[in-house]
Amino acid sequence: MIEPARVTEVLDGRHQELRRELRERMTDAKLADTIGLDVDTHRALVFDQLRELAATRHPRLGFAKQYGGEGDIGGSVVSFQMLGYGDLSLMVKAGVQWGLFGGAVQMLGTERHHAKYLPDIMSLDLPGCFAMTETGHGSDVQHLRTTARYDNGEFVVDTPDDAARKDYIGNAARDGRMAVVFAQLIVEDRSYGVHAFLVPIRDAAGRPVPGVRIGDCGPKAGLNGVDNGRLWFDHVRIPKENLLNRYGDVTDDGAYTSSIESDSRRFFTMLGTLVRGRISVAGAANSASQRALTIAVRRAESRSQFRKPDSDTEIPLLDYLAHQRKLLIPLARTYALHFAQDELVGMLGDVQSAPEPDPIAQRQLESRAAGIKAVATWHATSTIQTAREACGGAGYLADSGLPALKADTDVFTTFEGDNTVLLQLVAKGLLTDYRDNFADLSPLATARLVAEQLMGAVLERIAARQVISRFDDDVRSRDWHRSLFEDREQHVLEGLARRLRAAASSDTDPFDVFNDAQDHVLLAGRVHIDRLVFDAFVAAIDNCADEEVKALLEQVCDLYALASIEADRGWFLEHGRITTARSKKVTAEVNALCKSLRQYARTLVDAFAIPEQYLPAPSPT
Amino acid sequence: MIEPARVTEVLDGRHQELRRELRERMTDAKLADTIGLDVDTHRALVFDQLRELAATRHPRLGFAKQYGGEGDIGGSVVSFQMLGYGDLSLMVKAGVQWGLFGGAVQMLGTERHHAKYLPDIMSLDLPGCFAMTETGHGSDVQHLRTTARYDNGEFVVDTPDDAARKDYIGNAARDGRMAVVFAQLIVEDRSYGVHAFLVPIRDAAGRPVPGVRIGDCGPKAGLNGVDNGRLWFDHVRIPKENLLNRYGDVTDDGAYTSSIESDSRRFFTMLGTLVRGRISVAGAANSASQRALTIAVRRAESRSQFRKPDSDTEIPLLDYLAHQRKLLIPLARTYALHFAQDELVGMLGDVQSAPEPDPIAQRQLESRAAGIKAVATWHATSTIQTAREACGGAGYLADSGLPALKADTDVFTTFEGDNTVLLQLVAKGLLTDYRDNFADLSPLATARLVAEQLMGAVLERIAARQVISRFDDDVRSRDWHRSLFEDREQHVLEGLARRLRAAASSDTDPFDVFNDAQDHVLLAGRVHIDRLVFDAFVAAIDNCADEEVKALLEQVCDLYALASIEADRGWFLEHGRITTARSKKVTAEVNALCKSLRQYARTLVDAFAIPEQYLPAPSPT
Repeated sequence: MIEPARVTEVLDGRHQELRRELRERMTDAKLADTIGLDVDTHRALVFDQLRELAATRHPRLGFAKQYGGEGDIGGSVVSFQMLGYGDLSLMVKAGVQWGLFGGAVQMLGTERHHAKYLPDIMSLDLPGCFAMTETGHGSDVQHLRTTARYDNGEFVVDTPDDAARKDYIGNAARDGRMAVVFAQLIVEDRSYGVHAFLVPIRDAAGRPVPGVRIGDCGPKAGLNGVDNGRLWFDHVRIPKENLLNRYGDVTDDGAYTSSIESDSRRFFTMLGTLVRGRISVAGAANSASQRALTIAVRRAESRSQFRKPDSDTEIPLLDYLAHQRKLLIPLARTYALHFAQDELVGMLGDVQSAPEPDPIAQRQLESRAAGIKAVATWHATSTIQTAREACGGAGYLADSGLPALKADTDVFTTFEGDNTVLLQLVAKGLLTDYRDNFADLSPLATARLVAEQLMGAVLERIAARQVISRFDDDVRSRDWHRSLFEDREQHVLEGLARRLRAAASSDTDPFDVFNDAQDHVLLAGRVHIDRLVFDAFVAAIDNCADEEVKALLEQVCDLYALASIEADRGWFLEHGRITTARSKKVTAEVNALCKSLRQYARTLVDAFAIPEQYLPAPSPT
Repeated sequence: MIEPARVTEVLDGRHQELRRELRERMTDAKLADTIGLDVDTHRALVFDQLRELAATRHPRLGFAKQYGGEGDIGGSVVSFQMLGYGDLSLMVKAGVQWGLFGGAVQMLGTERHHAKYLPDIMSLDLPGCFAMTETGHGSDVQHLRTTARYDNGEFVVDTPDDAARKDYIGNAARDGRMAVVFAQLIVEDRSYGVHAFLVPIRDAAGRPVPGVRIGDCGPKAGLNGVDNGRLWFDHVRIPKENLLNRYGDVTDDGAYTSSIESDSRRFFTMLGTLVRGRISVAGAANSASQRALTIAVRRAESRSQFRKPDSDTEIPLLDYLAHQRKLLIPLARTYALHFAQDELVGMLGDVQSAPEPDPIAQRQLESRAAGIKAVATWHATSTIQTAREACGGAGYLADSGLPALKADTDVFTTFEGDNTVLLQLVAKGLLTDYRDNFADLSPLATARLVAEQLMGAVLERIAARQVISRFDDDVRSRDWHRSLFEDREQHVLEGLARRLRAAASSDTDPFDVFNDAQDHVLLAGRVHIDRLVFDAFVAAIDNCADEEVKALLEQVCDLYALASIEADRGWFLEHGRITTARSKKVTAEVNALCKSLRQYARTLVDAFAIPEQYLPAPSPT
């Protein structure tokens, strides 16, 4: 057998040392029991734990060196993800304070904000909020309606009505002293779009400051150690300097200035700098999937149910094909997503530590972050659900750890960007790229393009036949998997582009054009991300020096690829990419892989190296 | 527009008057707020509510008239299902007391038990438990290990070790005074299999009786108003009369007697009488799906997000195709399952009120109950999850009602029979029927069968081509839907039978033969149930006298059928049942149906007629 530690080494990827250090600290830590805590007690406990965390390396990782940080933005995401093995309320609370609040000050503010606030933010002497979402505007941030009107050297921050109140704001209900408030910046009745402002919300004694009303979102499905609240501003005056002015400012004589002329582009640029939040949530989702699978696989190995025919031998749950399919397919996908996340964190570090901003790399990063966040959080939700069911009644008891994991992570699919909106964002980006590639074509090139499109159906059928025939009989051929993933991505996108173009040239309402194709749009986003995740898995295997581990990971990757193809075989068959015989063979091979990987299941989950105290074992036997 | 009440009339089906009466009582009732209650307070509240419920008609419905009941077993399930609109802890607690505990006494006991206990059970003067599941044996009831050894006019009930303790037992941790304990009945070292025994567990003062140890399962994901506990018996002596002796008894001179000779058949006969539990859970799951969809559809109508291109008009969530697909497809399936449930409850009433037992009808009922329970509870789990996500952050707040709904129903997929085990049970029944149909063939008939099987592939291809061609272009042809559902059911089962027969005649280990085909087995169960559900929907439409409602339900049924076909188009394509062009057309038609049903979404959910106090509206706007 392969020692799990050898697989861990591969999983640790780009931040091996940091992961080891954090793991050691976590292994030594005592885990506070949060089962059955009421909301107030849980919140108090989490704030105390946050204070302890403030004294460690964790908060400093992501901040610039000149203010006492370590300037390792990727490391800050990894550390956040490791917190995901513990009480997720603490993880989210840390994310609000240092990721969202501190991150906004760092990314959207300038030197005067950094020097004045970052040290207190890191030390938790200044607990803060990230006040973006409004009750009436969750996903449509561009049109949120809180206003910050420039008036005589100050901004007047105001909530026009209840739909514009800030909602679901972490740190607001209990602990926050200051908030980064996103509001329409208005100078002399002209709005320059959404900007971020530092607004004090509580005084040193913890009382709301005049003009600020604070509400409590009350109990939630999970994450009850986080004090989510609501904020209303009644013409609150803040000094002009409280505008986080990296991308836009108001001069001393009251004129708006910005390095980016277009309001819309400026807005998306600002939003883009905050991409770490989504990447962090994707990482946390992976931690949760890993934890759920570790709990469920261990139980499935130790618990038996029913006997072999004519025998007194009871059968371990994991010997059943149905149980293997339930757990090992998500396990393979969790591996794939882990490697995709590692790659994504690497990209984040590269982009945000580049001496010069690279707009193309930035856009790729944002798109990938959006897509992987969506895919990883949906995966976590379904994986934890499956793990709970695979543990039966024991998985329903709080002491199995699974109920809290399910409840705490449930919001991941809709916070930091609703998953459906995010996948749509990915697809829109792809469509833009696609259009840009053909935007400056000469008349001749355009004619050629039209001809090619006319030829499209024919060419495609030939290509499809090639995809089918090229790889003979080996359903485990990696090249065949790759060709399916790539070909699907390309075909879905091209079909979508053609479809939208055709509809746009008709009389149809522009909203209807896009909306009628929304399932196609979302598919384009998903299959693009699927291909990226596949590539990341393959790249990780290519980099693996340990031959035995490599061989094991090849099997896991086969299972990931083939189970993905099986799940989407409707599409592949519909588009002539696989024959019906081959489709059946894929299912047979998925089953065969489940059977042969069953003996490595324990190794594969133990390799996640989750400290034991975060793995409450469900009831014995 | 169609008044929702007209649709409600159709939904009310076989128990129209009872449903109306219960709905009126519920509409007048005050709803206790359970958000944030600690476990002890919640349990106490639920027990108080159970006392109030004991004074209503609810507990009497399911019991025989001669003991003060109403003898309406179907009505008892309907009433249980209506409780599913309120706090599910109360529903489950009622189910434990009157359904499981009282039901076991009624179905497995004889006159002496009925006269002595049923009145006190109905009045709640005797709170009781249904102690079947053991820690080590959840699904494999036949091999549970608690023993009841006959000794000199008494039974000695004993828990041999911790794996044999009774686990997850409702009413055990706090309120139960007596338990129906399932144990191996042993006379003179010969076991006659599992029987049920009445064992006192607490005295009048609520203290455990000598020899009985009681534990507490502690906090759970949900249903925290139910006091689930554990029971250990240390050689507890009970009088011989406490054996529920309808199917087996011990004579005064210590001899075992039974009307059913085979231990195994006796066991399954006893178990079969308890089928109401599964049917009740299926009903409760439907109530939960209905409630989640009502909450989410109302919000999707009232909440807008993003603007139309070049306009200030914001778009209601339900105008988005993706949102329609998220909510309307599950809504159509919820309608289908509602009608299937109504039919199932009708069957239950017929079977259990028949003057003579009908073993064939009983077996059909058990199979259908198992399958519909599995399908309906998985549907509820995924529907509530989708509804939560469709409500975004608001759906994560406890006051939206969705978190409790998710947490409380999560155990439905694994209690009263693990869904995977249940689907397998359905498939095994089908295989047995299939084999029985060919068991007594003459040599000539056998030869003909073999010839037919050789012809199978050819005939099938012809049949498939007929399925494809027969219905021309109309993807909404009900006959075409039916032929697909029926044909898939038949093909999957026949293929499975052939596959198992072929494997069985090889040298393969019998466990491996079955296990290697387990995904095929589960598929056979699922597609059988899918066809039954489809038939039930069609039958309900046929019975509908209101033409406008009928036309609306036709559309809903189209959406149910086509979305089911779309979801399983991998199979239909793989087996040549649909062409690729038609497969794409199915998707297009699902989208078109979503668009056209969007205007009826509110009518369709309001028709569930859930009393308003059970529909907490998520935060405004």
